[in-house]
Amino acid sequence: MTLIALLQLDPTVGDLAHNAARLEELAGLAAQHGAEVGVSTELAVCGYPPRDLLLEHDFIQRSLACALGIKSTIPLLVGTPLPAEEPRSLPTNGVVRCGPEFTSLGGNVHARVVAEKQLLPTYDVFDEARYFSAKNRSGLARSVGALNLGVTVCEDAWQAAGSTPSAYAQDPIEHLAEWCRQGVAIDATVNLSASPFHSEKFSTRLHVARHAAAVLKHPFLLANQVGGNDDLLFDGRSLVAWPDGRAVVAPSWCEGVLLVDLNGPEGCRWLPSTASDALSIGEAEMESLSGSQTGLESVDTMDELTDAVVTGLADYCRKSNIGSIVLGLSGGIDSAVAACVAVAALGAENVTGLAMPSRHSSQHSIDDALHTANALGMECEVHRIDAMHMSIESTLAPVLENGHPVAAENLQARLRAILVMGYANARSSMAISTGNKSEIAQGYCTLYGDMAGGYAPLGDVYKMEVYAMADRFNKRALADGRPAPVSNSTLTKPPSAELAPDQVDADSLPPYDVLDTVLQAHIESGMNADQMMEAGFEEALVMDVLRRLERTEHKRRQMAPSPRVSSRAFGQGWRRPLASNHDWRGLSR
Amino acid sequence: MTLIALLQLDPTVGDLAHNAARLEELAGLAAQHGAEVGVSTELAVCGYPPRDLLLEHDFIQRSLACALGIKSTIPLLVGTPLPAEEPRSLPTNGVVRCGPEFTSLGGNVHARVVAEKQLLPTYDVFDEARYFSAKNRSGLARSVGALNLGVTVCEDAWQAAGSTPSAYAQDPIEHLAEWCRQGVAIDATVNLSASPFHSEKFSTRLHVARHAAAVLKHPFLLANQVGGNDDLLFDGRSLVAWPDGRAVVAPSWCEGVLLVDLNGPEGCRWLPSTASDALSIGEAEMESLSGSQTGLESVDTMDELTDAVVTGLADYCRKSNIGSIVLGLSGGIDSAVAACVAVAALGAENVTGLAMPSRHSSQHSIDDALHTANALGMECEVHRIDAMHMSIESTLAPVLENGHPVAAENLQARLRAILVMGYANARSSMAISTGNKSEIAQGYCTLYGDMAGGYAPLGDVYKMEVYAMADRFNKRALADGRPAPVSNSTLTKPPSAELAPDQVDADSLPPYDVLDTVLQAHIESGMNADQMMEAGFEEALVMDVLRRLERTEHKRRQMAPSPRVSSRAFGQGWRRPLASNHDWRGLSR
Repeated sequence: MTLIALLQLDPTVGDLAHNAARLEELAGLAAQHGAEVGVSTELAVCGYPPRDLLLEHDFIQRSLACALGIKSTIPLLVGTPLPAEEPRSLPTNGVVRCGPEFTSLGGNVHARVVAEKQLLPTYDVFDEARYFSAKNRSGLARSVGALNLGVTVCEDAWQAAGSTPSAYAQDPIEHLAEWCRQGVAIDATVNLSASPFHSEKFSTRLHVARHAAAVLKHPFLLANQVGGNDDLLFDGRSLVAWPDGRAVVAPSWCEGVLLVDLNGPEGCRWLPSTASDALSIGEAEMESLSGSQTGLESVDTMDELTDAVVTGLADYCRKSNIGSIVLGLSGGIDSAVAACVAVAALGAENVTGLAMPSRHSSQHSIDDALHTANALGMECEVHRIDAMHMSIESTLAPVLENGHPVAAENLQARLRAILVMGYANARSSMAISTGNKSEIAQGYCTLYGDMAGGYAPLGDVYKMEVYAMADRFNKRALADGRPAPVSNSTLTKPPSAELAPDQVDADSLPPYDVLDTVLQAHIESGMNADQMMEAGFEEALVMDVLRRLERTEHKRRQMAPSPRVSSRAFGQGWRRPLASNHDWRGLSR
Repeated sequence: MTLIALLQLDPTVGDLAHNAARLEELAGLAAQHGAEVGVSTELAVCGYPPRDLLLEHDFIQRSLACALGIKSTIPLLVGTPLPAEEPRSLPTNGVVRCGPEFTSLGGNVHARVVAEKQLLPTYDVFDEARYFSAKNRSGLARSVGALNLGVTVCEDAWQAAGSTPSAYAQDPIEHLAEWCRQGVAIDATVNLSASPFHSEKFSTRLHVARHAAAVLKHPFLLANQVGGNDDLLFDGRSLVAWPDGRAVVAPSWCEGVLLVDLNGPEGCRWLPSTASDALSIGEAEMESLSGSQTGLESVDTMDELTDAVVTGLADYCRKSNIGSIVLGLSGGIDSAVAACVAVAALGAENVTGLAMPSRHSSQHSIDDALHTANALGMECEVHRIDAMHMSIESTLAPVLENGHPVAAENLQARLRAILVMGYANARSSMAISTGNKSEIAQGYCTLYGDMAGGYAPLGDVYKMEVYAMADRFNKRALADGRPAPVSNSTLTKPPSAELAPDQVDADSLPPYDVLDTVLQAHIESGMNADQMMEAGFEEALVMDVLRRLERTEHKRRQMAPSPRVSSRAFGQGWRRPLASNHDWRGLSR
């Protein structure tokens, strides 16, 4: 039995001491259970993604010092940035050895470096060419305990499987395989990862690991970061794959140790972290897969998305020292689900809802808002905004009278934001924005109104998915013997912003099921207008949706981060010029 | 006399047809005046930076088609993205030949490609490794007219001069020089650039050009983009440098043609664009420099910064089809200068100011606001916000009473934002935010309050620079026989947010001259806390300023773009994790 421990950590970016302490805790747990070697996630000591902190020489130096100082009774491979070797060169994304022989913190730093990342992803949410220089020497850690390990960092393994958007000139997996063919004894190859989550991403990551194991002809072990850092979520699911395709997968959204027996799945175990504040959301079960399983068989996409969004908000708050949340409760589906997310993330005692009816609000809006708050056990206050609304309307009357009608509607959304922000500021809480991806994509939201808030938990969740999340939250509550938080009325009434008399969203937008299909074709599948029409979408529909999407780019840019759950989120992965002409595509023809 | 025309263009990103038409106009002007060859700026046909538009295959194809279709009676070298050659590879940043022999749009595309960018900047505001693959073949355009030209694209020339933050493995200038030594006849080397502006950047760019000319032993010609695209400004100043250091420089902030006589400065001319909507801000004069001049001798930094900021706002509005602006006028220095910028950018008839006093406002606030509006000839309305303010205060009374005092102060700023946004929405105008870099850096501003607006013209201008800009606007007005827009009272009263009784900024912040020095040391010079204390700053001052800077990162992230004028702006060049621990630097010790 040869046990390697994959340390599935939720690091806080920049909190070097905390991350190092957590690595020591997980390594201790691993040692206790007989692990011979521990392997951290990518850049574990500083957390991923450190972004422009990496431009500060100090940050790199202190990260490395912190990594080198990690104490462990078993050998560890720890991810850390490494300082540039030459004056006009960039740092590298490296892996160093820690453990019993180094506890006195002595020794030559160079001798402790076992790998430096070779493939630097610079697409989608990744900017690694901005921060690092790539090395072209494959990582090999000899005599780690009794083992010789190939060592790779995240993207290093993806070229071999053809799973990157563009090809790299090198292939670190093929390089290690060549060494094996030449007789170098390698017991297993490990991969330190910070591979972000999105829906169905896991099947690709599993494919990458299986492909590497098959090429290398030995077990391939991937330690993946878990938790949320701003808009990026990491699902954990550290895993081992054998050349025959069998695999063992750690749970998602939990910190702990995947204890891998190189001999096969039978000896593998999941050890949850024993730290009192360890991340632990959802079902914490290890899974064993045969060579033919994709790993998605047992995944309920909506359950996964729900846990992902909760993790995003919970970690954003924890890592930013935010203890409580305020949100507007309109009685609609979005704010009801956002309240469920907030309560799941921070506890009902730390969430306050504000119902803020205007003269355009229906009685069911207040009733449904109170239903949700009561069912969740959170505080809810009702403040009518009519007096303030009339006061502002009379001030602006001359300009509103002949102006664009949306101006009058926006007043209410912005007044509510003043109240929500007033609560948040007074109590040192964070306001959250409750909008969903579909309405944000269409600009069907008010800048500095309902878009206000420090985090937007549903900002990457399509409207129809919000309904499905409501269903999950209701089922979970009922299963726990609590009342369902999202009322039938909220689930079934026609969506309405209630900013004008008898207004419903369908007056301005296509029905959400249709809208979501169009948006997903364009945003997630990357289809352009012509391709969408070829695929059978009506021209007028496509053009309207795309035009609104282009025109509201500037509003989206001023929103708080949203946890990224879809394959192509707004934000980091959607960098577009604002002051530009988007008509090159011929939308106005 | 051998004349090469540098086509100094202000392209609109994505407006392919417009950019192509403007290139044809400038090429026509050049041909009229005897130019043998025309050279565009980098990616001129699609504008720089196209950012994620480059991820769309369509966009690349249409850009190239548009470039290839450009009609000209003289040969042109035009910057355009080129499609990837292989399925899993990236596009390149290329240069194609246009001109009389190609007007029928025929011919082999490959044969028309004369260069592809070799060095891809991926630092600061640049992300080129995200979009392009680098080529390692130097560009040479033979028989362009009667000339053989070395062809480089922007960064290609910067490695030779050592003017990049990290070194590249290749040096395109050295490579061309080696060809020359081997006997290849090259008459001159041209460089298609989109080199962004910041204060004093020009001297570096001039150094790069002179260095290239000296290494190549022939004239080096650089055509630089001009105008504003979101937060990026391009100052133009296309130039030619000879091996002996002499140089001729086109004006900044103007579109036109720099007609370069390869024989020397005497035959060079500046031809302003004749298009009715051509960018033309500031003094449009060509300058001839001896080898010992830095090019900054005749530059007044504050005049330059003033023109830069006006260009940024003017171009943002033009390229986004925004015809009018609304802003709050507080009687303070920031809003007064922002009003000057708006009027300079769009004309007084397109700018509306709102003075919105509360019970904390002094009479001089209204008087000074009206003075500025009257002097500028712009509309100004006065709306007292007391009634709304009291209405909101009474609603929030219970939470405000025991809450953080800043909550009550923020109400006023947010109420004013509702009015400004109400005007903007009703009239389809854009609201601008008037805050300066110093206060934004310290979080001395209200999110969704005074930070609201689609563009923040002064967001990268330090407070003391705002005063200096006020002085420039006053002098310019007086020189034109108009009244000075910024009153003595505005210039001399102690800065105050007027959100609480007798409040002045100095209650919460160090004096602005001190604050600016600390901020500049950290942000622009990249000094850390230790270095700043070594340099003589007081520890308590440094720690307070840096702590506030870290804590308000999330607010800055939700701001509209600001034209970048300093060496290290917030925004694209300042990518930091939000939910993270910034205490690795030991600020809390």
